[in-house]
Amino acid sequence: MAGSIYGTLFCVSTWGESHGKGIGVVIDGCPAGLPLDEEDIQKYLDRRKPGQSRFTTARQEGDRVEILSGVFEGRTTGTPIALEVRNTDQRSRDYGNLMDVYRPGHADFTFDEKYGFRDYRGGGRSSGRETIARVAAGAVASRLLERLGVKVQAYTCSIGPVSIDRARMDISKMWQNRLYMPDETAAKEAESYLDDMMARKDSCGGVVECVIEGLPAGVGEPVFDKLDAGLARAMLSIGAVKGFELGDGFEAARSLGSRNNDGFYINEDGAAKKRTNHSGGTLGGMSDSAPVVMRAAFKPTPSIAQPQRTVDRFGREKEIEIRGRHDPIIVPRAVVVVEAMAALTAADLLLLSMTSRLDRIEEFFGKKEK
Amino acid sequence: MAGSIYGTLFCVSTWGESHGKGIGVVIDGCPAGLPLDEEDIQKYLDRRKPGQSRFTTARQEGDRVEILSGVFEGRTTGTPIALEVRNTDQRSRDYGNLMDVYRPGHADFTFDEKYGFRDYRGGGRSSGRETIARVAAGAVASRLLERLGVKVQAYTCSIGPVSIDRARMDISKMWQNRLYMPDETAAKEAESYLDDMMARKDSCGGVVECVIEGLPAGVGEPVFDKLDAGLARAMLSIGAVKGFELGDGFEAARSLGSRNNDGFYINEDGAAKKRTNHSGGTLGGMSDSAPVVMRAAFKPTPSIAQPQRTVDRFGREKEIEIRGRHDPIIVPRAVVVVEAMAALTAADLLLLSMTSRLDRIEEFFGKKEK
Amino acid sequence: MAGSIYGTLFCVSTWGESHGKGIGVVIDGCPAGLPLDEEDIQKYLDRRKPGQSRFTTARQEGDRVEILSGVFEGRTTGTPIALEVRNTDQRSRDYGNLMDVYRPGHADFTFDEKYGFRDYRGGGRSSGRETIARVAAGAVASRLLERLGVKVQAYTCSIGPVSIDRARMDISKMWQNRLYMPDETAAKEAESYLDDMMARKDSCGGVVECVIEGLPAGVGEPVFDKLDAGLARAMLSIGAVKGFELGDGFEAARSLGSRNNDGFYINEDGAAKKRTNHSGGTLGGMSDSAPVVMRAAFKPTPSIAQPQRTVDRFGREKEIEIRGRHDPIIVPRAVVVVEAMAALTAADLLLLSMTSRLDRIEEFFGKKEK
Amino acid sequence: MAGSIYGTLFCVSTWGESHGKGIGVVIDGCPAGLPLDEEDIQKYLDRRKPGQSRFTTARQEGDRVEILSGVFEGRTTGTPIALEVRNTDQRSRDYGNLMDVYRPGHADFTFDEKYGFRDYRGGGRSSGRETIARVAAGAVASRLLERLGVKVQAYTCSIGPVSIDRARMDISKMWQNRLYMPDETAAKEAESYLDDMMARKDSCGGVVECVIEGLPAGVGEPVFDKLDAGLARAMLSIGAVKGFELGDGFEAARSLGSRNNDGFYINEDGAAKKRTNHSGGTLGGMSDSAPVVMRAAFKPTPSIAQPQRTVDRFGREKEIEIRGRHDPIIVPRAVVVVEAMAALTAADLLLLSMTSRLDRIEEFFGKKEK
Repeated sequence: MAGSIYGTLFCVSTWGESHGKGIGVVIDGCPAGLPLDEEDIQKYLDRRKPGQSRFTTARQEGDRVEILSGVFEGRTTGTPIALEVRNTDQRSRDYGNLMDVYRPGHADFTFDEKYGFRDYRGGGRSSGRETIARVAAGAVASRLLERLGVKVQAYTCSIGPVSIDRARMDISKMWQNRLYMPDETAAKEAESYLDDMMARKDSCGGVVECVIEGLPAGVGEPVFDKLDAGLARAMLSIGAVKGFELGDGFEAARSLGSRNNDGFYINEDGAAKKRTNHSGGTLGGMSDSAPVVMRAAFKPTPSIAQPQRTVDRFGREKEIEIRGRHDPIIVPRAVVVVEAMAALTAADLLLLSMTSRLDRIEEFFGKKEK
Repeated sequence: MAGSIYGTLFCVSTWGESHGKGIGVVIDGCPAGLPLDEEDIQKYLDRRKPGQSRFTTARQEGDRVEILSGVFEGRTTGTPIALEVRNTDQRSRDYGNLMDVYRPGHADFTFDEKYGFRDYRGGGRSSGRETIARVAAGAVASRLLERLGVKVQAYTCSIGPVSIDRARMDISKMWQNRLYMPDETAAKEAESYLDDMMARKDSCGGVVECVIEGLPAGVGEPVFDKLDAGLARAMLSIGAVKGFELGDGFEAARSLGSRNNDGFYINEDGAAKKRTNHSGGTLGGMSDSAPVVMRAAFKPTPSIAQPQRTVDRFGREKEIEIRGRHDPIIVPRAVVVVEAMAALTAADLLLLSMTSRLDRIEEFFGKKEK
Repeated sequence: MAGSIYGTLFCVSTWGESHGKGIGVVIDGCPAGLPLDEEDIQKYLDRRKPGQSRFTTARQEGDRVEILSGVFEGRTTGTPIALEVRNTDQRSRDYGNLMDVYRPGHADFTFDEKYGFRDYRGGGRSSGRETIARVAAGAVASRLLERLGVKVQAYTCSIGPVSIDRARMDISKMWQNRLYMPDETAAKEAESYLDDMMARKDSCGGVVECVIEGLPAGVGEPVFDKLDAGLARAMLSIGAVKGFELGDGFEAARSLGSRNNDGFYINEDGAAKKRTNHSGGTLGGMSDSAPVVMRAAFKPTPSIAQPQRTVDRFGREKEIEIRGRHDPIIVPRAVVVVEAMAALTAADLLLLSMTSRLDRIEEFFGKKEK
Repeated sequence: MAGSIYGTLFCVSTWGESHGKGIGVVIDGCPAGLPLDEEDIQKYLDRRKPGQSRFTTARQEGDRVEILSGVFEGRTTGTPIALEVRNTDQRSRDYGNLMDVYRPGHADFTFDEKYGFRDYRGGGRSSGRETIARVAAGAVASRLLERLGVKVQAYTCSIGPVSIDRARMDISKMWQNRLYMPDETAAKEAESYLDDMMARKDSCGGVVECVIEGLPAGVGEPVFDKLDAGLARAMLSIGAVKGFELGDGFEAARSLGSRNNDGFYINEDGAAKKRTNHSGGTLGGMSDSAPVVMRAAFKPTPSIAQPQRTVDRFGREKEIEIRGRHDPIIVPRAVVVVEAMAALTAADLLLLSMTSRLDRIEEFFGKKEK
C-alpha cells in the first residue's frame, strides 16, 4: 500500500511513468458479464488526449489501450482486468536539463525527500500521464454504472475568472468546444483569456463540476466512508486539485439553516423527494436520490515558460526556464479524469451498498422468509 | 467494512449512538511506549462538550472517557486501546415525536432507505455525538504526533458572514472566546450575529481552518493516497462539512501559474524551503515541510425551531417544528473534531512514510551496508 | 492495523487483556434487521467458559456480555455493534512472580521484543481470554449465517493419541461430554488420558474439526482470497493452532489423482453434485456446495506445573514452576473459538460473493434487462 | 477486492489467464533504492518453468518477464513495479472439447457458479500459470528480504509416499535433481515412483517445506495477523494446497507440553534463544528469532489421462479423458511458488513491524529524547 490502489470492492491498482514503457491499471472486482471492448475504453482516453486544441500540448501521443486479461468473448469474466497503454514517445531530451532542479509547483522536491531519488523524465510517476490509468479504469466503472442506471458527467465550470452562466448552461454544448464548457459564450471568452495567458507565458486554473445521476438512495456509509468523503478523496487525489465542494459547498457556510435545508415532498410515484438540492445529493453521507453535484478546483499549470527562481538537489539556488510546450490550463483534459474518479467511487460504494439490509440479502440468496 | 473504520496503520474503529449506552472507539496500531492517561483524552473531549457558552446546547452531558485496554502502567502497550464514554442522558422524550418524520437536512430519510429502519432517538448513529469517538482517538494521535515533533491546531475561521482578519489574527486568542476564533474583534461580531440567529430561530454555518506543523517532507503517497486526499476525506467524513480547501484552495483556480507557484530558496541550514505557501504544504500529494493548511466549510445546523415542510416514512407531507434546544452553529464544537481528524490522518501517513526508502529501512534494522 | 481487525465486509475489531478492565469487540458491517439480543451471544460465550469440567480452570469468571450499540428494538441497525465483557477477576497475584521471566511456549519473549515491554498479568493480550471477543463476534456471524441457510459446527476430533471413530461418530453426542467429542467411547478414553496428564503435571494437544453446511457454490475468491486461504488464516490466528487441513489435507499429499478427484453426478433436482468430498467442499478456492470440512491442530497447553528451564528479560537463566491451576488441554474450550472463526470467515466471504455477477446485481437493483 | 490482491504494505495485484495475452503483477509498496533487473526475476521464473524434466509438461513456454515501471537506472523508485509475461502459446485446441464439462478436481464448476460463465481455455484464471505472477512478485520480495538479512528457502519434502530422510538431508542437493529434494536417495526413489504414476495414467501429491531464516524477533502481529496466520493464508491460497503446518504442526497435537515447550537459554552474545524449535519459529504469532519452518501439502494433479465420470454445464452426465500432456505431480514446480508466497508474507509483516515501538520510531525520525 504505497498509494496506487483505489477502492474496496471495485478495486484498481495503477502503474506507470511518463517516460517509462507504459501506463496501466489492473481492475480487481469488476462483476462478470459486463460487455466490454477496447473501443469502450479508448473513447474515454481520447477525451484526455493532448493535441486536441491550441491550448493542449502538441505531442501526438496516440495512446492506444490494450485489454490483456479479464475479458473473454466480449464480456468481463469477474477476474482481474489488466489495461495497458504503451508509451510511444519515451524521449527524455526535453527534460534532461531539469534532472537536478526542483521545479516550483511540481513534485520533484518531495519525491527526492520521500524516495532518495526520482525518475526525472517528464515527472515520472507524478506526470499527468498517470491519469491515463484512472481514465481507463473509470471507463469500465462508467460502463458498469450505466447498466445499473447511473450516469456520471463532468464539464468545465470555470477557467480563470471566466465562469459558465447557469441560465445559459446547456450540457450538450460541452462537446462543441475544446474546453468542455456547457456554455458557448463563456467558452469563447475563456479561449481568449487562454490566448492571453499563452502570450504572457503564464498559466491559469479552473473548476470542474461533476454530476452523478440515477444513484439509488442509501449509497455511501455513515461515519468515515460517506459518499461525500469518498468523492472528496477521489478529487483531491488528482494532482492539481486544491479544493472540493459538494452541493453548495463553501456557500453553505455563509447560508442559513432555513435556506440551506432541503425540504421533502411526495412525488407522483409516492416517493419522498427533496424540493431543492443544496446538499448536493447526500444526507448523512448517503445518496438521497437527488443528483450528486460536486466541484473540484484546479490550480494553474505549474510549468510556465517564464524564468523562475528555485534550487537544485545540491543546495544551490538557480533560475530556470521550463522549455517545451505546456498547456496553459489543465482543466479541459482533466474533465474526464474527474468523471473517472467519480465513477470509480460511485461504483465501489454502490456495490458495497448491496450488503446493508438483511431482508434484501435474504432475497438475493433466495432465503426470504414469508 | 460499513464505514466506521478509519486508517491503515493507525486504525480506529468507532461505535455508538446518541441515546444508546455509550460511544466508543478502538485504536489498533498505536505504537507501544506512549505515555497516556484518561486526562490526556478528557482535555480534548471537554473542548467539544456542550454547555460552554450560550450558543451551545444546555444539556450537561458530562462525557467522561474510560480507557479499557491497551495501556499498562501509564504507557500504551502496542495492543488495541479501547476508549469508552457512557451516555448519561439516554432520555428520548425530546425526539419521540420525530420518529417517523424526515427532518430536512438530517439523515433520517437516507438511514431508512439504506437500512429499512433506524434508531430515531436523537439521530442515533448520525448524531453529532458520534464525533466523541473521533475526538478521543484524535487525542491519542495528537499525543503520538507531539512526540514526533508534529503539532495540529484548528480554529474558527469564519461564522456566517464574519471572518477573521489575517492581519489581526493571534492564535493564542482562540482560547479566550467560546467560538475558538483567533481574532477577538471578529469573535465579538460573530457572537452578535449568532444572537441574531437565535432570535430568528435560524442557524448558520462557518469555516474551520487547521494547520499541521512539523511534518517532515515526504509524508503522503503519490497517486490515490496523497496527503491532500487523506485530509479531504477526513474533513468530508464529518457530518456537516460540504467543502474542503488545501492552501489557496478555490482561490488557486482563479490565480496564475506565475503567482501560484511557490519558488524554493536555500535556508541558513542549507535546506530547500519554499518562499511562499500557496500549495498549503504539499507538493505532488506529499508534505513539503511547510505548514499544511486546510479549511473545512460547515453547513448551518439543520435543526431549527422554525416550522419546516417535510414528509414522513408513510408518504405523508407534514409540517414540523424541531423542539428542544439546538446550537445555532456547529462550528465551535467542531473545531476539535477537525483537529482530531487531521491528527488521525497525519499519524497514519507519517507511520506509513517509514517504509518508503530501503536505505532508511536497512538502517532501522541495523543492516546498513557501508 | 496492528492485527486485531478481521474481515472486509463483516469486519470485527477486538480489544482487551486478561487482567485489564475487560474484553470486547466492535462489529462493523453486520447487515441491518438481524434479530439479536445478549442471550444469543451469551450462549456461545458459555461454551468457552472455564469451570465446566475437572479439566478446565476452576476460576469462576462469569463472563457476561453487554451489547452497547448497533441494536435497536431487538434488531441490528446496520451500524457498529459493540460487545463488551467486563473482567470480574483482575487480581494479578498468581502472575507477579513471572513478570520478568519468559515462560516456554508463551508469547512473553516476543511481546518484549516487539513492544519493549508487556502487560505481564495473565498473559495480557496473548491470554486465551482474548478469544472471548472472537466468540462474541462469531455468535453474531452465526446468527446471520443461519438466516441465510448456513450452519457452522465444530467438535473435538482428537485429544492426544485418542481420536474419534468415524464409524461411531454421532454429532448429537458432543453435547453429552465436556470434551465436545461426538463419540462417547473416545470421550471416556480421552478423559482418562487427561487424568493421567494432570497426575503427571503435564498437558497435551488435540484436533478440532469444523464443518460448514449450506454454503451456496461460489463463495470465496480465486487466487489470494480463496475460502481455503481465509479459513487457514482464521484457524492459524488462534493462539495454540499449529496446523490446518481442508478435506483430506495432508492425506491428499499421499493419495492418487484417480482417488482424490471428486467426480460429479446430477442429482434428483438436476444439480451438479460431487460423489465424494476429498476436497473438503471447495474447488479452486470457491465453495462447491458440498460441506466445507476443516481441521485445526492445537499444541499442548504451554503452562505446566513441572519445573522448566528458561531465562528472564535481564539475560539470566532460570528454573520456573508455573503455579495456579491450568487446563491440561486447550481443545474443549477452543471448539467454540474454531466455530466462531469459521463463521466470521464464511459470513465475510458470503457477503462478498454477492458482487460477482452483473446479472444478479442488475436484478438486485431492479435493472434486469429482459 | 475480488481476491487477486495480496499484502498491506508490500502489496501485489495479479492478473492474467492461461491462454489470454499474458500474466502479470503490479507491486505497490516496494521501498525505493532496491537494485533490480529482469534477470533477478527471471531466475525465479525459470525455476517454475515446465520442460525441465520428464515429469513436467513438454510445452516450451519460454516465459520472459518484462519490467514495465517502477525501476529507474537499475533501482526501484518506490512507485508501482509492473511485471509482465506475455503468453507465447495461446492456442486453445487442446482444451476446446472441455469447454462445457466440469473436470473433477478443477475449478470449472465453481467458476461457472460464481460468474455465470468462464474462460475455459486451459483453466483460464484458475490455471497454474497464474502463479507466474506470484513468483515474479516473490522474487522482488526475496531481493528486499536479502538486503535485510532474511533468507527464504523451500524444497520438496515428500512425493507421494516418498519422504526425505532428515538424517541424510543436505540442502545443497536440492539443486541436483529436478524434484528439488535435498536428499538424493529419496529423489531417485521419488523419480521411479513418478515413472510408475505416468505409466498408470495417474498422478500423486506431495509436501513442500519452507524455511525463513534471519527474521528478527517480533515480526507478525498478535491476534488475527499472526505470522502463522499470514503464512497459512499464503500457502492455502496456492491452488492445490490442502494442508499447512508450522513447526511440529499436527504432530504437536499428539505431543506433551513438557516435550513441546521450547525452553530458553542465554547464548554467547547474551541473547535469549530457544533450545529447540517445536514451535517453528513463532511464539504468540510473532517471530521468535529461530528459523520459521512450515510445510504445505499438495494434492495430486487433477488432470489425469484415465477416463473419469463427471457432468457438463447442461446437466448431463459424461465420461471424459483429459488429453494433452500433464505433470503427474505439481510439487517440483510449486517449490518456488511456496517460496514466493512465504517471501511476500514475510516482507509485508517485516515492514509492518517497523511501527510497533515509539522509541524506535522516535529514533527513525531523529526525535529520540535523551
